[in-house]
Amino acid sequence: MHVVVPFDAAAPKTRLAPLLDDSERHALASCMLGDVLDAVTSTHESVSTVDVLATAPLDDDNDHHGQDHADVGVTVDDRPLTDAVNDVVTDTLPDEPLAVVMADLGLATPSALTRLYGTAGDVVLVPGRGVGTNALVVRTPAFRVDFHGTSYLDHRLAAERVGASVETVDSFRLATDVDEPADLVEAFVHGGPRTVDWLTERFELTVDDEEGRVTLDRR
Amino acid sequence: MHVVVPFDAAAPKTRLAPLLDDSERHALASCMLGDVLDAVTSTHESVSTVDVLATAPLDDDNDHHGQDHADVGVTVDDRPLTDAVNDVVTDTLPDEPLAVVMADLGLATPSALTRLYGTAGDVVLVPGRGVGTNALVVRTPAFRVDFHGTSYLDHRLAAERVGASVETVDSFRLATDVDEPADLVEAFVHGGPRTVDWLTERFELTVDDEEGRVTLDRR
Repeated sequence: MHVVVPFDAAAPKTRLAPLLDDSERHALASCMLGDVLDAVTSTHESVSTVDVLATAPLDDDNDHHGQDHADVGVTVDDRPLTDAVNDVVTDTLPDEPLAVVMADLGLATPSALTRLYGTAGDVVLVPGRGVGTNALVVRTPAFRVDFHGTSYLDHRLAAERVGASVETVDSFRLATDVDEPADLVEAFVHGGPRTVDWLTERFELTVDDEEGRVTLDRR
Repeated sequence: MHVVVPFDAAAPKTRLAPLLDDSERHALASCMLGDVLDAVTSTHESVSTVDVLATAPLDDDNDHHGQDHADVGVTVDDRPLTDAVNDVVTDTLPDEPLAVVMADLGLATPSALTRLYGTAGDVVLVPGRGVGTNALVVRTPAFRVDFHGTSYLDHRLAAERVGASVETVDSFRLATDVDEPADLVEAFVHGGPRTVDWLTERFELTVDDEEGRVTLDRR
């Protein structure tokens, strides 16, 4: 299986702006990319090649890729995500299956990804919060992705239109893309080592005594 | 395995007040309870008895329990959740394992619950969004629950203190308790039949064209 990890290297995680400044958003996005690549490359059996699909060249300063993932390729493609990924679908299928794993899945683990790769189906979808698609496996060349809006529902319809079977993977870790400030709580508690280290240096958990709600606050 | 489903029959889902009035919150909570009980009672093999642990007597008007779940008991206990559940722990263990499944898991399915019941461990935790514990299995009489605040982390510590092994179940469906307006999007798309019917009568999905974010709006 070829695995592609789309990564917005140009303007990552803009919806975290209420909590993180621009350089922090770049740094956290890079930590999450590193953790995702760790998880992806730890599931050797079914994975043949791994490629980061980046919107811009990766920055040397916070390039966890270059340090630890010498076996991972990088392709720069500044087009919209849907167009870039569909070119990868065309290039990969039918020679081998393709997995797409978003770079902001800071809670991804090898075992969650192994469940994804191991689920049979022409198209295997991992629904994310907000009706998105956080990861998928494509085993039929007729399928095309469309990541805008309600992509989970749209991908189901797109698979149906080309007669492809659809399965889903029920994973909290893969359903949690770190997009908004509330998602940082999940990354703080359940994230990979780079992500957790970066967050715990700057933030701490606070429990609201009345409601028992948990938030992340600056140290 | 004995399964207990805690249900706030008195003032359910107060954090949905921005979107739903009081009677709507009661109705939706009752739909979710019905869907959860459907899922719980569909996993026959390992489940011996099912009991709703309610803070007040169930209302006849929207009592999905009475209509469809004649084999499900109801216990009324108006104490805080932690105290009420710990009494159930004491009453159930060590005779048989206990599963606690919250009544607001509107996305619960038999297969997600089967994964929970089938996971070995003295204590099996299902982390929920916001560091909560949405479901758990207890197989050791020494363990006590504490549902306030960061209960997922607290339950890990509590298990460690009594020398109990801990496992977790990675499930988006069980991690999604329907607490806040944003969670209703998940229930709308992935929820059980009662929950989806109730929501689709009143709401529709809207995609913000610029950001592609998805919200639920009144029809």
